[in-house]
Amino acid sequence: MDLELIKSLAVPNTTKIILLSADGLGGFPHPDTGRSELETARIPRLDALARRASCGLIRHVAPGITPGSGPGHLGLFGYEPLHYPVGRGVLEALGIDFELRAGDVAARGNFCTVDGAGRITDRRAGRIPTERCVELVDRLRQIRLAGVELFVEPVKEHRFVLVLRGARLGGRLSETDPQATGQPPLPVRALSPEAEPAAELVNQFVAQAAGLLADAAPANMILLRGFDQLPALPRFPEVFRLRAAAIAAYPMYRGLARLVGMDVLKTGATFVDEVATLAAHWDAYDFVFLHYKDTDKAGEDGDFAGKVAALERLDAALPVIEAQRPDVLVVTGDHATPAVLKGHSWHPVPVLLAGAYAAPDGVDRFSERACAAGSLGVLPAHHLMPIVMASALRLTKYGA
Amino acid sequence: MDLELIKSLAVPNTTKIILLSADGLGGFPHPDTGRSELETARIPRLDALARRASCGLIRHVAPGITPGSGPGHLGLFGYEPLHYPVGRGVLEALGIDFELRAGDVAARGNFCTVDGAGRITDRRAGRIPTERCVELVDRLRQIRLAGVELFVEPVKEHRFVLVLRGARLGGRLSETDPQATGQPPLPVRALSPEAEPAAELVNQFVAQAAGLLADAAPANMILLRGFDQLPALPRFPEVFRLRAAAIAAYPMYRGLARLVGMDVLKTGATFVDEVATLAAHWDAYDFVFLHYKDTDKAGEDGDFAGKVAALERLDAALPVIEAQRPDVLVVTGDHATPAVLKGHSWHPVPVLLAGAYAAPDGVDRFSERACAAGSLGVLPAHHLMPIVMASALRLTKYGA
Repeated sequence: MDLELIKSLAVPNTTKIILLSADGLGGFPHPDTGRSELETARIPRLDALARRASCGLIRHVAPGITPGSGPGHLGLFGYEPLHYPVGRGVLEALGIDFELRAGDVAARGNFCTVDGAGRITDRRAGRIPTERCVELVDRLRQIRLAGVELFVEPVKEHRFVLVLRGARLGGRLSETDPQATGQPPLPVRALSPEAEPAAELVNQFVAQAAGLLADAAPANMILLRGFDQLPALPRFPEVFRLRAAAIAAYPMYRGLARLVGMDVLKTGATFVDEVATLAAHWDAYDFVFLHYKDTDKAGEDGDFAGKVAALERLDAALPVIEAQRPDVLVVTGDHATPAVLKGHSWHPVPVLLAGAYAAPDGVDRFSERACAAGSLGVLPAHHLMPIVMASALRLTKYGA
Repeated sequence: MDLELIKSLAVPNTTKIILLSADGLGGFPHPDTGRSELETARIPRLDALARRASCGLIRHVAPGITPGSGPGHLGLFGYEPLHYPVGRGVLEALGIDFELRAGDVAARGNFCTVDGAGRITDRRAGRIPTERCVELVDRLRQIRLAGVELFVEPVKEHRFVLVLRGARLGGRLSETDPQATGQPPLPVRALSPEAEPAAELVNQFVAQAAGLLADAAPANMILLRGFDQLPALPRFPEVFRLRAAAIAAYPMYRGLARLVGMDVLKTGATFVDEVATLAAHWDAYDFVFLHYKDTDKAGEDGDFAGKVAALERLDAALPVIEAQRPDVLVVTGDHATPAVLKGHSWHPVPVLLAGAYAAPDGVDRFSERACAAGSLGVLPAHHLMPIVMASALRLTKYGA
């Protein structure tokens, strides 16, 4: 499905849409009970919503592929994730709220440990504490290179972000991480002619960093990978003709929304804050992307009961969301994060689409198993937005 | 799915197929009862057929996209509608049974109103009555242009069709309709170098029309759009190796069948006539496309009870169709036309495929909800014909 087609069929209307993404929503049966997190949780409001909605399962990237948060959300926003790749450096920068500009080259950095011969002995420098990372990043900020502005930003433990800002930098660079110990870091190579100047600059940066970190063992060297520039994505508000806002307590999701041109609304640290922000700004927008993080966090921690509790908190927040009376309300997630897997997974994720023109389909619970019988079937993520748009009577007919 | 692949696998057989397209078949629950038109209608024969058939839902163009009748039927005939676009001018000509030839350039015309300065004040000329349209079309028929034959045909109210016939005319032309009032009609531009001569001729036609209509307010000017030529579609009888006939009381559907190379059988104005035509010609064909219009008409009118009645009349006609003993009988539609929406919609449409090698799947009613649980799943329309062909044992194995 071509976004150009959607753009050509999108028509204005007064209808309003909420897309609620519960991060890592999908789960997996607990071995003791045979019931997933959704099947275990007491979520009467979500179940009731499912009963009056069209339901199905969302597949985010491709069958068997486990999505990262970037591709997971791009799919929900209507962008076929395999057609719109976003580099890891860019995602890492978005994840710390760094305001990347077009043309910036971003990379993920690791502090690492090298021996006297310069060979890597620990690719993560013993996972130094974040405070140490902050100190060492300060050292790297002394580096100056001709013709380019440098940003070095701490992330967490051994991780940092490097951004080069300057005229006509190419972002297609090889990484310095050999992905193995016992070898020295690799020099950066340009993967396209336009990236030659950037490759030269990054190699100078690495050389200076080695000098500045010589006495900082175990964090006495750096590795850089995932070089990329902001992708040129079609702008969501123009493709769909929607005044669109994002509400997310976590920077990564704000960054992804900014990437596609949504307004990012200032909000607090909790979902209750987010829902209050929704209520405060609802009049000004046609489409709000609302992000709920707790489901994913508990899943990543392998905390089955914690994820069940997170789902129950989400259920409790539903009345305030429904009180905005959206014409279309979608509840789904960007990927599954089953507690039994302690991480993202490839399993399709339940979705419900409630609205006056989305017919109930007999699904009576909001769960992986129940939604598998829904009328939306197993839906590639980027097919969701066209159905949402249609349900909001915002797409005209194709052909006579 | 590639038609070349299908063609390479198609094998002769003596099996026979009926594709019954109930126009606008799919519906939507009535707000008072929660039941759709299909769920409300008493259709015991269709339900019985569904019980011994493989069932599913057809999605015609793409998720969320509402199909016009052209793309809707091309999909059912096995043509991926987005790969085989058919211009609006061509569809309009087909809709009035105009026998377009290869190379003809067809456009939709509107009579419109312009003010003294030539600016459009009403894009539809107050929807003049059809009789007035016929008179004004007669005036336009006086226009003569060098090297080209012209056809001007009335349609309905303010609408007409313009066809240019001549050697080497290109059809890629911009439209004269600015899609807004307060502006003058636009000159036609060639969108490809081959279309330069046609652009020149159309602009001459418009200039002469302006003169001939000067005293005919409110219909004192014309707008032209949807310029196109007959697309070069692979021929249905050759792709599928089927002697194929179409039976349709309405010209648009005869035109679409002719477009893909089916024989169009002469028939009467009612579905009873159509079914009699089927019985009369059944021996001579392997495949018959049978079109039922009443479901769509009632849906377009927002007449829920009328659509229910149309479904019950269809059900009553089923025995005569089944009496032909087709090896494969398919019942579906080209798009949904829910009475509550008074027009086409994006909702997937029920399909049943009955035949000796299509297994029953537990679906016990012919309705949107029941078919959602069928074994065909949610099927892109152009995937239906290969399954129909296979079920008629007319496709050989792919690979050894």
